[in-house]
Amino acid sequence: MQNFTFVNPTRIIFGKAVVAKLGPEAAKAGKKALFVYGGGSIKKNGVYDVIMESLARNGVAVTEHAGVKPNPALSHVQAGIAKARAAGCDLVVAAGGGSVIDEAKAIAAGAMYEGDVWDFFCGKAEIRQALPLFTALTLPATGSEMNAGCVVTNEVTAQKYSAHSPALFPRVSALDPETTLTLPREQVAYGAVDSIAHIIEGYFTTRDADAEVTDEIVHALARSVVASTLRILKDPADYNARASMMWSATLALNGLATCGYGGTSFINHAIEHSLSAIYDIAHGAGLAIVMPAWFRHHLETAGPARLEKFGAAVFGVSGAAETIAAFEDFFRRAGAPVRLAEAGIPAEDIPKISANAMGLIRLWGMKHEQPEIEKILRLAV
Amino acid sequence: MQNFTFVNPTRIIFGKAVVAKLGPEAAKAGKKALFVYGGGSIKKNGVYDVIMESLARNGVAVTEHAGVKPNPALSHVQAGIAKARAAGCDLVVAAGGGSVIDEAKAIAAGAMYEGDVWDFFCGKAEIRQALPLFTALTLPATGSEMNAGCVVTNEVTAQKYSAHSPALFPRVSALDPETTLTLPREQVAYGAVDSIAHIIEGYFTTRDADAEVTDEIVHALARSVVASTLRILKDPADYNARASMMWSATLALNGLATCGYGGTSFINHAIEHSLSAIYDIAHGAGLAIVMPAWFRHHLETAGPARLEKFGAAVFGVSGAAETIAAFEDFFRRAGAPVRLAEAGIPAEDIPKISANAMGLIRLWGMKHEQPEIEKILRLAV
Repeated sequence: MQNFTFVNPTRIIFGKAVVAKLGPEAAKAGKKALFVYGGGSIKKNGVYDVIMESLARNGVAVTEHAGVKPNPALSHVQAGIAKARAAGCDLVVAAGGGSVIDEAKAIAAGAMYEGDVWDFFCGKAEIRQALPLFTALTLPATGSEMNAGCVVTNEVTAQKYSAHSPALFPRVSALDPETTLTLPREQVAYGAVDSIAHIIEGYFTTRDADAEVTDEIVHALARSVVASTLRILKDPADYNARASMMWSATLALNGLATCGYGGTSFINHAIEHSLSAIYDIAHGAGLAIVMPAWFRHHLETAGPARLEKFGAAVFGVSGAAETIAAFEDFFRRAGAPVRLAEAGIPAEDIPKISANAMGLIRLWGMKHEQPEIEKILRLAV
Repeated sequence: MQNFTFVNPTRIIFGKAVVAKLGPEAAKAGKKALFVYGGGSIKKNGVYDVIMESLARNGVAVTEHAGVKPNPALSHVQAGIAKARAAGCDLVVAAGGGSVIDEAKAIAAGAMYEGDVWDFFCGKAEIRQALPLFTALTLPATGSEMNAGCVVTNEVTAQKYSAHSPALFPRVSALDPETTLTLPREQVAYGAVDSIAHIIEGYFTTRDADAEVTDEIVHALARSVVASTLRILKDPADYNARASMMWSATLALNGLATCGYGGTSFINHAIEHSLSAIYDIAHGAGLAIVMPAWFRHHLETAGPARLEKFGAAVFGVSGAAETIAAFEDFFRRAGAPVRLAEAGIPAEDIPKISANAMGLIRLWGMKHEQPEIEKILRLAV
């Protein structure tokens, strides 16, 4: 078990009708909020009204910044920063899924920085401060509501890069599973795949296979995501399954699932970022394509031990190949594509995708070369 | 799944040689430390020297407060508060097990309060502020290194009571598994029992059996404690087993193991506190006696469902009675007593013990009457 540091100061308020508690919390931090959200689903499910009323009742003025897209775009982040500055905002409120929260984080940091916010993503500058952030999560998937990272896509250069800083931890995140009851089925699927991807990256890439307590936690979270997702697909109104899924997805990337692992890498994410940067597909869809291919590569290069252990604990299967099949089966049942062609991505693009991925792999300091990435992607044909 | 709030701001620094990192952390908070420790085991294992040197190198002056006993005594807490005031301490450093950390918390709160520190424990006053606390844990058991509670015993009234406040979260806790390599075998046993007790209280007393993700986490932590303990008993020098045990014990009572449960109670702890308050036995020994008896009572009154689920997931057994037997077997293998007589406690004291327990049960607002407590204790004869 390797040395580690764990710290996570985000306050989670979880359950029915908790979104209205954001107003009093935000009022402790400031008086003028930039309210960041996406395409309007929060107007349909009532979250928008609840937040507006809660902020107003607690004396917090609001400047709206709507229209965040999946794979949030740098230009939209820059527009949000300009708005926050013009209005003199002293806090940020975000309502939506991981893209909305990620863009809100980038704005919160960019608003307190003189240079271009992209500096944080391409490694030119470090985030030292950010406006306090309050979130209402409506899509369990990315874990952004309880971590210190964010991902933004530079549309001009087709780079989907990330930034990290303790200053990015949300102050408070409100998680109401009822706000997820109306999610489209494909978002349920992609959220489940994304959560699984977060849970497994450290487990399968660690050089230290003797962090037993973390292995157990990884198994626990994966079992919970799989079981909850299957329950949700059967009965979308199952509150307890929605709740279990929501909390599992948060815990999947809040730091717990990698404690004591060493030399981990985010290789599946690095490859997927290229898919969604180039083709603008859903992050979860891209991950469902990359993971089975990477598992086959992992089996060849690292052997069957981890796949066997995971498969026995999570899927109740024996053998590494059976574990990979169980992953694929779960992704398919959830409704995600598991091959490039199923997402309309041509095999002849593999060199282009791999070249794009190398940018992120180098930036993250990972030890992979382009031929290896091409080989993994060819396993997804 | 019930609504919940989760927040835990303690920074954990975990692994080999991390204790020396406490000095720089403490220096951010103040210049004069009260250094709280126990009977001197930290002088043998080197932790004392590392902390003294780290504090000195970072310009933090030290006033020592040694001699904390298991089941820390109110009078010793009061003496520590007097010392901290006299020396003008602006922070507290604790090195040892849960008793040392609990006493340090009580001192940290008491030093900033005009009245008697016992007011916090008997419900007369709330803790609103405390000196910042830095800990080096040397005995995995109580979870105090990453939570907001502490337990102190009033020797005059034989009351072992607790206090809780967000102000009591340690700022930083350093957990070096190597400092646990020399623990006496009985402390390994009692630490394991205490951790198991923390893991199971919420699971078995919740009125909501549909918080699936938390059930999975409870199973994961319990499996880890059981497996690590058996490895440690076989080979006390097994670093990875020590590390897994240490992190499991911390996670067992940092809030994760009860998220989404409703109506939970700390009934095993309430009864045990009377045993250790009256007979000054180890908390873990008392818990190993109370838990099997309480499980039998739980089976009679609540049915077999939770015992069956837990037994299958953690011990790989079928049936509620088999689960209780597996708990007892684990406690015995660890070296803990599982009946009152094995700890030298006479059955005729049961009414006295039960009457004492009722004080805490009423203070904690739990719905139990004395005949029920007597019945449970009779199952431990």
